[in-house]
Amino acid sequence: MPLLQEDRLFPTDPVTRAMARELYDLIRDLPIISPHGHTDPRWYAEDAAFPDPAQLIVTPDHYVFRMLASQGVALAELGVPRTDGGPVQTDGRKIWRLFAQHYHLFAGTPSRLWLDHSFQHVFGIERRLNGQSADWYYDHIADCLTRPEFRPRALYERFNIEVIATTEAATDDLRWHRMICDSDWDGRVVTAYRPDGVIDPEFTGFAENVAMLGEQTGCDTATWAGYLDAHRGRRAFFKQFGATSTDHGHATARTEDLPQTDAAALFHKALKGDCTPHEADTFRAHMLTEMARMSLDDGLVMQIHPGSRRNHSDQVMAIFGRDKGFDIPGRTDYVAALRPLLNAVGMRSDLTVVLFTLDETSYSRELAPLAGVYPALRLGPAWWFHDSAEGMRRFREMTTETAGFYNTVGFNDDTRAFCSIPARHDVARRVDCAYLATLVATGRLTEEEAPDLAHELTYGLAKKAYRL
Amino acid sequence: MPLLQEDRLFPTDPVTRAMARELYDLIRDLPIISPHGHTDPRWYAEDAAFPDPAQLIVTPDHYVFRMLASQGVALAELGVPRTDGGPVQTDGRKIWRLFAQHYHLFAGTPSRLWLDHSFQHVFGIERRLNGQSADWYYDHIADCLTRPEFRPRALYERFNIEVIATTEAATDDLRWHRMICDSDWDGRVVTAYRPDGVIDPEFTGFAENVAMLGEQTGCDTATWAGYLDAHRGRRAFFKQFGATSTDHGHATARTEDLPQTDAAALFHKALKGDCTPHEADTFRAHMLTEMARMSLDDGLVMQIHPGSRRNHSDQVMAIFGRDKGFDIPGRTDYVAALRPLLNAVGMRSDLTVVLFTLDETSYSRELAPLAGVYPALRLGPAWWFHDSAEGMRRFREMTTETAGFYNTVGFNDDTRAFCSIPARHDVARRVDCAYLATLVATGRLTEEEAPDLAHELTYGLAKKAYRL
Amino acid sequence: MPLLQEDRLFPTDPVTRAMARELYDLIRDLPIISPHGHTDPRWYAEDAAFPDPAQLIVTPDHYVFRMLASQGVALAELGVPRTDGGPVQTDGRKIWRLFAQHYHLFAGTPSRLWLDHSFQHVFGIERRLNGQSADWYYDHIADCLTRPEFRPRALYERFNIEVIATTEAATDDLRWHRMICDSDWDGRVVTAYRPDGVIDPEFTGFAENVAMLGEQTGCDTATWAGYLDAHRGRRAFFKQFGATSTDHGHATARTEDLPQTDAAALFHKALKGDCTPHEADTFRAHMLTEMARMSLDDGLVMQIHPGSRRNHSDQVMAIFGRDKGFDIPGRTDYVAALRPLLNAVGMRSDLTVVLFTLDETSYSRELAPLAGVYPALRLGPAWWFHDSAEGMRRFREMTTETAGFYNTVGFNDDTRAFCSIPARHDVARRVDCAYLATLVATGRLTEEEAPDLAHELTYGLAKKAYRL
Repeated sequence: MPLLQEDRLFPTDPVTRAMARELYDLIRDLPIISPHGHTDPRWYAEDAAFPDPAQLIVTPDHYVFRMLASQGVALAELGVPRTDGGPVQTDGRKIWRLFAQHYHLFAGTPSRLWLDHSFQHVFGIERRLNGQSADWYYDHIADCLTRPEFRPRALYERFNIEVIATTEAATDDLRWHRMICDSDWDGRVVTAYRPDGVIDPEFTGFAENVAMLGEQTGCDTATWAGYLDAHRGRRAFFKQFGATSTDHGHATARTEDLPQTDAAALFHKALKGDCTPHEADTFRAHMLTEMARMSLDDGLVMQIHPGSRRNHSDQVMAIFGRDKGFDIPGRTDYVAALRPLLNAVGMRSDLTVVLFTLDETSYSRELAPLAGVYPALRLGPAWWFHDSAEGMRRFREMTTETAGFYNTVGFNDDTRAFCSIPARHDVARRVDCAYLATLVATGRLTEEEAPDLAHELTYGLAKKAYRL
Repeated sequence: MPLLQEDRLFPTDPVTRAMARELYDLIRDLPIISPHGHTDPRWYAEDAAFPDPAQLIVTPDHYVFRMLASQGVALAELGVPRTDGGPVQTDGRKIWRLFAQHYHLFAGTPSRLWLDHSFQHVFGIERRLNGQSADWYYDHIADCLTRPEFRPRALYERFNIEVIATTEAATDDLRWHRMICDSDWDGRVVTAYRPDGVIDPEFTGFAENVAMLGEQTGCDTATWAGYLDAHRGRRAFFKQFGATSTDHGHATARTEDLPQTDAAALFHKALKGDCTPHEADTFRAHMLTEMARMSLDDGLVMQIHPGSRRNHSDQVMAIFGRDKGFDIPGRTDYVAALRPLLNAVGMRSDLTVVLFTLDETSYSRELAPLAGVYPALRLGPAWWFHDSAEGMRRFREMTTETAGFYNTVGFNDDTRAFCSIPARHDVARRVDCAYLATLVATGRLTEEEAPDLAHELTYGLAKKAYRL
Repeated sequence: MPLLQEDRLFPTDPVTRAMARELYDLIRDLPIISPHGHTDPRWYAEDAAFPDPAQLIVTPDHYVFRMLASQGVALAELGVPRTDGGPVQTDGRKIWRLFAQHYHLFAGTPSRLWLDHSFQHVFGIERRLNGQSADWYYDHIADCLTRPEFRPRALYERFNIEVIATTEAATDDLRWHRMICDSDWDGRVVTAYRPDGVIDPEFTGFAENVAMLGEQTGCDTATWAGYLDAHRGRRAFFKQFGATSTDHGHATARTEDLPQTDAAALFHKALKGDCTPHEADTFRAHMLTEMARMSLDDGLVMQIHPGSRRNHSDQVMAIFGRDKGFDIPGRTDYVAALRPLLNAVGMRSDLTVVLFTLDETSYSRELAPLAGVYPALRLGPAWWFHDSAEGMRRFREMTTETAGFYNTVGFNDDTRAFCSIPARHDVARRVDCAYLATLVATGRLTEEEAPDLAHELTYGLAKKAYRL
């Protein structure tokens, strides 16, 4: 018996459900456009077998281990590595059993849908995961992973991915991307320019990172002009490896457009490590406007992912480091925050700035009104904690009436979990078709328009917005 | 084929849909009560033919041109006038074609429903608007506009409007209202007292406006007492032209109840242009409480429309001026903000203060709890960006359980777009009937109560709350 | 004809409705676990007849009298006592008539469902309440109240309550709880430790309360160490009367973890009445962390109920005092506010801190992400203004996808209104079954899992989380 119900995520009313299914059938097999995410380019470069099931599915997925942690399972027992290299569980089977015993915790969560989708569609499993089936599951998946059709490139093709973007730090050498380019494989894996480490004065190793940026580009990054030139050079370098976008993950959406002398002065303070927290924040804010101006020159689409209060637990940060599920969203203002950037470049229709949020209250109050008038702005899809059936529904219900569909950019899977990619896109396709069908059923859209919109939401808007 | 579906905006479940339709049939033909809006009184006074289709439908409607702007269409190409009188497109047909070519952008928006409703019901069109049909549309509507049955008074009657309020600045001479009164037409067009220009020290021309208020009322508005008297006199003058309400559009909902000597001191600073931004804000805040006290004397219903961050784009403000679609909502507090006013007059049941919001988070958290206990408070309907099917549904779902229906005031169309008035009221009637039907279908309301409530939401509450 | 519809609060789609009904039938008769509320322990202790219908149903219920107040009914006319003992209506029949005449105001509110449920199920009434039936109702209920089967203990048993918690101030002598323990009645009525009066330097009589705490425990509460010891002693005393929890109702969720010397210094200032508002707030914030540490020692579950701006109307506070319906929710931050407490004890899985909110925006943005990762945290159910069908639905839709079901704690009725207890639990059971059925119908949960989850949400999670 399949793990997944055929008509999942469609409306319950039979007539509307049939409309949704019909729309979905039109777009279900479209190639995946994945314009923003965090898969490891090394996978595609080396095309090596994935390690054991726990290393593939449990240990790297913060959605998974945070839920187990919330019910008292220690991160170390799940094999999450300690920053000091101290002992953690390394026996994949033991980790998998712990995961399986707690699998009921995921009832009603998107992780459950993604995982069951992977189990059924990637690994052909029709048995439910729980404590009893844990070992059987482990053996089955481990066996699959030894086979060539489960290597990264084979899965890329089986997943029907047309293009996938990874995200690399500005100072990354892009060696894996180079290796992919140099190979005879014709998969399209592109990078994206993530300069937080050379823009944020509070980032660990900021000055060293800026120095490295100078070395990499031959620019004198001890000067403000040289620093900006180094960004330009590095962005061009990233473009050689397919980059069509930049990505910026600040704690807030604050932007500034300072006089160049003030910006230069802050930059020099930042290099010396002398910035106050407020000055550091001002520098980051100003740099978003500089990045937007560079995007006008080089055409890179700018993504802003603000609002996460990172590393909320000091204890977890000390033992396990960053990205361990302890990033918590906070209230995020966009209206005042984005005004300096928008006053500088917001009326330019040759610029694309994609806005994301972890604060759903901004959808109808701020983001849709902003994207519904500024030519430079587009709305990214429901993000992170909101990348879910209810989250996507709320996104459409709270943005469409003011911003329409064409100021949105389709779906991002934004994931490190390779096997979940088809599952995540499938959820988005179903929820969008459910939404469109509901509009048709309630007379807000014609039956003629819906198929085209389904295609746009699945494929067209992402390609166009990200210039892919 | 009609542009509009018969059962639009009703629930999808057939039984609930039938209930909603039955309720709607009871109230669909009730007269329109329009207690707050921005139509031009000159239309009703002169009863002249409307100019071309673009001037009627595209150029004055910020919902329409902001969406086109968001996709890169220049405001000047849509005929939006420049404040310096510089060149903009004046050929209505060219503007209309641009609009028609971009009409797909409105898929899923309330503007689309309003426009299609006007096309079908006002102009008898059964063909879809797009690039191909643009010229046909233009000719058809232009032809209609030459005929007497498309003049403002004829449309007023055809729209079945019982009473409509316009909104005029405190210093307006109300000449058009006088002309309507002096005419033999028996339509009921009333004004509303909007004193922002003489209350807000930061309003362009504040001191001149206050001086003019003095001239108009024979009060010495160089003194605090004379200034208050001038308000009283001007309110009485507005009442002569049917006003039953005042309207206040501040950036926040802040109120104060200062000692009179402090208020007087701020007033004198304001006249001299010496207020700091904080002092200007304090003066505005205090004046809301003064206005409330005057309402206790003269019975005018007080409307507070806070929370818009106006003129967000400096560039658009410089070239095109105010009200060009660049007003963006922001977070708005009511709990602390309204406390001074409520402590002064909130327990008075002979006062009506109607609260609006652009921040939907305040519905269940602040506004419903406040209106659900203070006798002076009522909740205005879903406003502006939230004047939509989803917005109205959220309004009912998030306010009814705490404030009930009787602390709400029916619908406001709040529009400058004359032809959209029946469409907007129709959307509200449908969404309210859908909500009531859902309550009946889920056992939260009896079948006996629903028709009376449908009548109240459509007609009774607006008349009573606005004393019309 | 029954007042209540059989299938109320279930989904409208027939298939999903049938699933919901089936789930509901499995759990509708489970005993009531009421782990947090405000019923009067004296009722169970003395088991005396309730006074007249108005004293039972109208006068003590702030949900009821606030709605009437909002439409201009004076609190005094409803018998709400004045703090100065001045005259208020004491004729129960007159109060009841006023209530009955305004009963239509409750259309669409949870109060209406609760009241009709009590009328039908507690008093066997099948006639609607309104002005005409007012006297009949009054006589009928008054007659019931004279009979033994309507005494508190009989109702407790008829309501199928397994355990109910009351809430007492830290300095309460628990005499009624002692009397219950000493009786031969086997009902389980437990207390809960509410120390606001000895923790909040701004609480009326703070220093006296602390002194009394010293007397009650034999600790020297003039010293910081003695004060903490007194808390420990008093918590132990409360545990003797069944307490398994503490309860904290602060204006914000702010916590601090100060050095002990700083905390001691603040404590001494507080005793002398010398704290600034900020210092008082800091002391309260620190004490939450102290309470959490004590919970690690004694096992009491900690409840935090933040975010109410109490006594919003000065006039009502002056005349009628606290808890008169004029408590208004405000924006509440949890992410920064809880960090000190969570850094101190949040990773402990032997601690349970149950978080509540009046700010629904925190559900998906802050509370679900926090409870979905910290082992010490659980989410309390939709609270107060959100204890309603829509409120509960929003709670599930906005928390489940991130925190799952197992980080929630079932339902709290949190009420002073004894007769409403079965009604409130019934609403929660129905809404939860509707939610589970919707998940099944949309393929997000299997039919096999739903019954177990329905049992957990109704019974299991509350017993486990509250250690009952």
